[in-house]
Amino acid sequence: MSEQTSSSTYPSVNDLSLEEKASLTSGGDAWHLQPIEERGIPGYMITDGPHGLRKTAGDTGAIDLEHTVPATCFPPAAGMSSTWNPELVEEVGQAMAEECIQEKVAVILGPGVNIKRNPLGGRCFEYWSEDPYLAGHEAVGIVKGVQSKGVGTSLKHFAVNNQETDRLRIDARVSQRALREIYLPAFEHIVKTAQPWTVMCAYNRINGVYAAQNRWLLTDVLRKEWGFKGIVMSDWGADHDRVASLNAGLNLEMPPSFTDDQIVSAARDGRISPKQLDDMAQGMIGLVNKTRQAMSVEDYRFDAQVHDDIARRAAAESMVLLKNDEHILPLSKNARVAVIGEFARTPRYQGGGSSHITPTQLTSLLDALQQRGIEYDFAPGFTLEDGEQEQSLVDEAVNIASKADAVVMCLGLPEYAESEGFDRTSLDIPAKQLELLSKVRESNANVVVLLSNGSVVSLTPWQDQAKAVVETWLLGQSGGGAIADMLFGDVNPSGKLSQTIPLNILDDPSMLNWPGEEGHVDYGEGVFVGYRYYDTYAKEVAYPFGFGLSYSDFSIDNVSVERTGANTACVRATVTNVSQTAGAQTVQIYVAPGRSEVARPVHELKGFAKVFLEAGESKEISIDLDERAFAYWSERFNDWHIEAGTYGIEVATSSRDIVERLDIELEGDGKSLPLNEWSNMSEWRKDPVGGPIVKRMFEEGRDGRIPALPENNLGAELFLDAMPINSMSVLLGKDGKVLTQFLLDEYAKETDGLH
Amino acid sequence: MSEQTSSSTYPSVNDLSLEEKASLTSGGDAWHLQPIEERGIPGYMITDGPHGLRKTAGDTGAIDLEHTVPATCFPPAAGMSSTWNPELVEEVGQAMAEECIQEKVAVILGPGVNIKRNPLGGRCFEYWSEDPYLAGHEAVGIVKGVQSKGVGTSLKHFAVNNQETDRLRIDARVSQRALREIYLPAFEHIVKTAQPWTVMCAYNRINGVYAAQNRWLLTDVLRKEWGFKGIVMSDWGADHDRVASLNAGLNLEMPPSFTDDQIVSAARDGRISPKQLDDMAQGMIGLVNKTRQAMSVEDYRFDAQVHDDIARRAAAESMVLLKNDEHILPLSKNARVAVIGEFARTPRYQGGGSSHITPTQLTSLLDALQQRGIEYDFAPGFTLEDGEQEQSLVDEAVNIASKADAVVMCLGLPEYAESEGFDRTSLDIPAKQLELLSKVRESNANVVVLLSNGSVVSLTPWQDQAKAVVETWLLGQSGGGAIADMLFGDVNPSGKLSQTIPLNILDDPSMLNWPGEEGHVDYGEGVFVGYRYYDTYAKEVAYPFGFGLSYSDFSIDNVSVERTGANTACVRATVTNVSQTAGAQTVQIYVAPGRSEVARPVHELKGFAKVFLEAGESKEISIDLDERAFAYWSERFNDWHIEAGTYGIEVATSSRDIVERLDIELEGDGKSLPLNEWSNMSEWRKDPVGGPIVKRMFEEGRDGRIPALPENNLGAELFLDAMPINSMSVLLGKDGKVLTQFLLDEYAKETDGLH
Repeated sequence: MSEQTSSSTYPSVNDLSLEEKASLTSGGDAWHLQPIEERGIPGYMITDGPHGLRKTAGDTGAIDLEHTVPATCFPPAAGMSSTWNPELVEEVGQAMAEECIQEKVAVILGPGVNIKRNPLGGRCFEYWSEDPYLAGHEAVGIVKGVQSKGVGTSLKHFAVNNQETDRLRIDARVSQRALREIYLPAFEHIVKTAQPWTVMCAYNRINGVYAAQNRWLLTDVLRKEWGFKGIVMSDWGADHDRVASLNAGLNLEMPPSFTDDQIVSAARDGRISPKQLDDMAQGMIGLVNKTRQAMSVEDYRFDAQVHDDIARRAAAESMVLLKNDEHILPLSKNARVAVIGEFARTPRYQGGGSSHITPTQLTSLLDALQQRGIEYDFAPGFTLEDGEQEQSLVDEAVNIASKADAVVMCLGLPEYAESEGFDRTSLDIPAKQLELLSKVRESNANVVVLLSNGSVVSLTPWQDQAKAVVETWLLGQSGGGAIADMLFGDVNPSGKLSQTIPLNILDDPSMLNWPGEEGHVDYGEGVFVGYRYYDTYAKEVAYPFGFGLSYSDFSIDNVSVERTGANTACVRATVTNVSQTAGAQTVQIYVAPGRSEVARPVHELKGFAKVFLEAGESKEISIDLDERAFAYWSERFNDWHIEAGTYGIEVATSSRDIVERLDIELEGDGKSLPLNEWSNMSEWRKDPVGGPIVKRMFEEGRDGRIPALPENNLGAELFLDAMPINSMSVLLGKDGKVLTQFLLDEYAKETDGLH
Repeated sequence: MSEQTSSSTYPSVNDLSLEEKASLTSGGDAWHLQPIEERGIPGYMITDGPHGLRKTAGDTGAIDLEHTVPATCFPPAAGMSSTWNPELVEEVGQAMAEECIQEKVAVILGPGVNIKRNPLGGRCFEYWSEDPYLAGHEAVGIVKGVQSKGVGTSLKHFAVNNQETDRLRIDARVSQRALREIYLPAFEHIVKTAQPWTVMCAYNRINGVYAAQNRWLLTDVLRKEWGFKGIVMSDWGADHDRVASLNAGLNLEMPPSFTDDQIVSAARDGRISPKQLDDMAQGMIGLVNKTRQAMSVEDYRFDAQVHDDIARRAAAESMVLLKNDEHILPLSKNARVAVIGEFARTPRYQGGGSSHITPTQLTSLLDALQQRGIEYDFAPGFTLEDGEQEQSLVDEAVNIASKADAVVMCLGLPEYAESEGFDRTSLDIPAKQLELLSKVRESNANVVVLLSNGSVVSLTPWQDQAKAVVETWLLGQSGGGAIADMLFGDVNPSGKLSQTIPLNILDDPSMLNWPGEEGHVDYGEGVFVGYRYYDTYAKEVAYPFGFGLSYSDFSIDNVSVERTGANTACVRATVTNVSQTAGAQTVQIYVAPGRSEVARPVHELKGFAKVFLEAGESKEISIDLDERAFAYWSERFNDWHIEAGTYGIEVATSSRDIVERLDIELEGDGKSLPLNEWSNMSEWRKDPVGGPIVKRMFEEGRDGRIPALPENNLGAELFLDAMPINSMSVLLGKDGKVLTQFLLDEYAKETDGLH
């Protein structure tokens, strides 16, 4: 299972002693692999990500999240996921890798592709989406970009790490179907298409078993099913049992608990097989081999300005224009603007926790306005502490607002309100900000609200007071410039929501089981996460998944869908910019299953294309839908299953803005289970083999050759179709057994060798 | 475990051969026990219930649900559960027993106390409530009443049989907490307080194991925990493995599959222990002993008229007045009334399936009006078939409506629309009825709608067109008289909803997992069933649980709550009829837990009292709240747990009409788990023993006696509280292990012998 790099100068695992092999399966310190100097195996550094390099300054072996070397702070996933632009994400990945090369970091820990099951999750800002297709197809850019430069990534947190509450112990109890359709596909897509060199297992348990000890997850699914070739490391402190974890498929314990002797003795007494230890250790050698070239580059210096520009472009595409009444945006460059809100001066640009980095530079909105030579008045309006409002700040803000043509209000969540380490308990932004908005609005109707937050905040109580609302998420170090560009029309907003904005957090279906209790959390909503719930159950939302406005107007025409195989299709459409402004539209393809044996979401995202168009320009897009686009995970087959029948193909600009829907017929995958005594009469009747046998049973019963089933009998009608055929004696006494045997015998005859 | 009736003339199990013992564990035919003539053990009849005796006419050994002897058809549970009157239910039970004695039926199969998890459930009409407290405290009356006459009951369907779809095979996957708090308590209450002579196990599986084979359910919980003394029989056809079922605690297979030889050979080869077979067989002898006296009564004849009167009283209290604008009800006896709707002539008075009985007499609304000498016009308005509307029926109805002072419209679900055997797919009543209502309303504004249906129907689309709406559910054979009494004020409606009427079925939290798929259904909503969801998540409903109007007005005063023990209380209040009309008010006590370690419903019904009051009369009520009223089921303790703290006690007339709320402080049950290496630092800090040790750890660390924890370190702050103490090496390397051991050693010293 581990990759053999025969051309390497490093040894094969076969050259190592048992103790040396064991030593490779834990770190050297908090941020380094364990070296074997005498074998020439170096102890490379591995450290956080995911939206830039967080490398401890000074003693790089200790856990110190506060003192870190400068690195470009790209927009966290909260922002970047709104770009719907995997190529841009890949550019960011390339830039991060260059910084790793300079800093001699072999693996950067990310991307994190856990599903935003609930917007209150404290780490939502680091994750990509409520939708696994989007999360996988965007975050794969980080892996491709970083690894294209010879630096490793660590796809994390594998798996089902969707909350901070009790995250180190919580048991996530999830159905197989929800695992396969919601919580694993982003990992699966990235593993299959980009082979991350490492995967980081999660802290939590999954259906009772710690991720680090979960052989089903780390070996059966990740390696055997998906073909993963890299190594699995523990999240920091997630490995509680060295032997069990190694046997499950964990290559590397981080940070080390200095228990390699446990591996040695388990290998000696047979609790670990030689093959398993060799595989795990060889994987570590393979990782060192892969990173060796990049780690050998001397005196490399990345271009901080170039990276800042990439960060700024990423920020520009991360902003989502939610409303723009009366086309108040973009503002006229001659407008007299009042800028209100401490965030304009002290931007909230990244999240808290292990991903928190020291930026190479930081541009606030005020900085950017000054750089542009824009005249403005500024009032902070509120402080970022969790205290009472100060009346003088309100007065000052109202005063400058009353004299302005337009007010730009920078609202959002202060750092204390969201971070790795805890979940939020409310979607609300601080009350004092909303009170300020209300006062400002009384003195000036032209209010543009810019939101800074890592995960969804509630808009319902206040958004009527703003003519425009821009969700800027967390934009990284260069967000100020991007916002200024957007405000004055030099950037045309093109972000689309990667998570639904609900009216009320109590509407979220996971709230019935959030954040769990007594050591477990039941994923009771199953596959109905995010828009899969809101759209299927016809619930009103504030803004739907995939939504985002533009300064341009677009049309989508010539939509066609063509079958390309038994269970595949290709969607084509022409997208036209029908406005006078260059811009980008993201076309989204949702697949809407028809009749199904299982409860399926009314539709699911299965493709997208972001199209950049000059004013008046048209482009044709073509999006392939593979078999998976139509499949559900069948617990009965323990496999994906595509049912024959009609599927709607929706071409859309959000999950609620369907431009056109066309139907296609698929052949299905033909999977079926053989009938048996537990199959009920209805299943027998519908079966191509069983149906005629049942018919014959009735005929032969009438002819007296076998016992007759009662006809026109209420009890029989009520029970027969639902009854497994092994229960026919309920209706017929001993005769029932004769009939059961008749059905089974005839079926065996006709299917001999088929099943 | 089986009851020994030493005074019996029947043999002990010790007198029987192995074959004889085995023969007692299956039926003789579809509706009889298996006799052992030579031992003097008779084969008594056992047959359906639950709202009257359904005894097959003629050959009573065959399954024939259509030809049955006449019996009083009491209101099904759908109606009776709205009475909130256990004494009345008990009277009905006594009457049913008298009919069993006449018909030589030893056990009547019922009551069915499964929870109405979802109003679409096809058998909701046979079940009592969405609330387990109400279901248990009402249905217990059936058991007490029937058994007081020496006839047995069968408490069914044990357990978690909440749907018809695939009911014979479906695996209900339910958390332990939801089982204990929602799906089992009605059974538990009845077993503990009334000892039903038999329990009928359900068809379905529960967390993977068929109810019939579920030893945890049938032996550990039912017998060992609850002290059940009777026998368990299978639902008809629910026993698929004689040996496994008998070992699980199933005494009786019904109907027989003629496989007693399997029991014999399993007993011979040790797969069944002698003790287990003896217990199961002795239970059957005990049952025969209990029923012997009643079965020996000769030539008994029940008084059909007396029973019809009981049925009429039960019907009178079953009706729920949902709205009564402008006090349109009661109607003046001189009013010119148009009666519209086929249900007035052809009442829908019971449900379909195994409970369907032949009434001794049947009074339609038209019959009752004639008996009263009321003048009315009648138009059927629609047919009860699932076909198109006939214009002539509409014209006729509109015509009589236009000439009337008031219109009584009888709407509802025809028989084809709900029955045992299938679940509904919509809450709607047939469109043609609503179109008729709309037309009638155009010609007469004084519309009273009477609804006949076994489970909730949607009211939202049309109830604005009616001045009054009365939910009459299914009222049994004498419902026509009860309705006529209510319409003209001779009966004052006093029913209260035993299930919430939602605005839209998609609001129901179980809809995310309804009715399951691929052989299983996940109870993803956990304990948040019915009003526990709607009230906790602040969702609007059409009518809340516990709601029902009266022709009287009531006040509730002098509310007091008194602690009666560490974790018990007594609620007192004075209820006054402040109107000129005699009537009844049902006071409901909801307990609202305060802060809790688990997600608890905002409140739960824990007591009620129906108070009958003459005009102007007052009565004091007193309701005891036992420990269970405050407890939740803790999966951590695997037991009930009462937390110390504040609990709100709500005195209410529905789950949304809280008259007064008082708080009490409880001491809690003091349960705690010992700390260990998996306890996190936050748990250590909060623990009375662990807290001081942690404090000492910090002090000794500062003194240099043990390693020091980092202070003011972001990583430490983020992680420490959430971290199980076995992971401190993540932050501290080898020093972490020293600290972990320090904590464990100190704790062991201070708790020596305590845990």
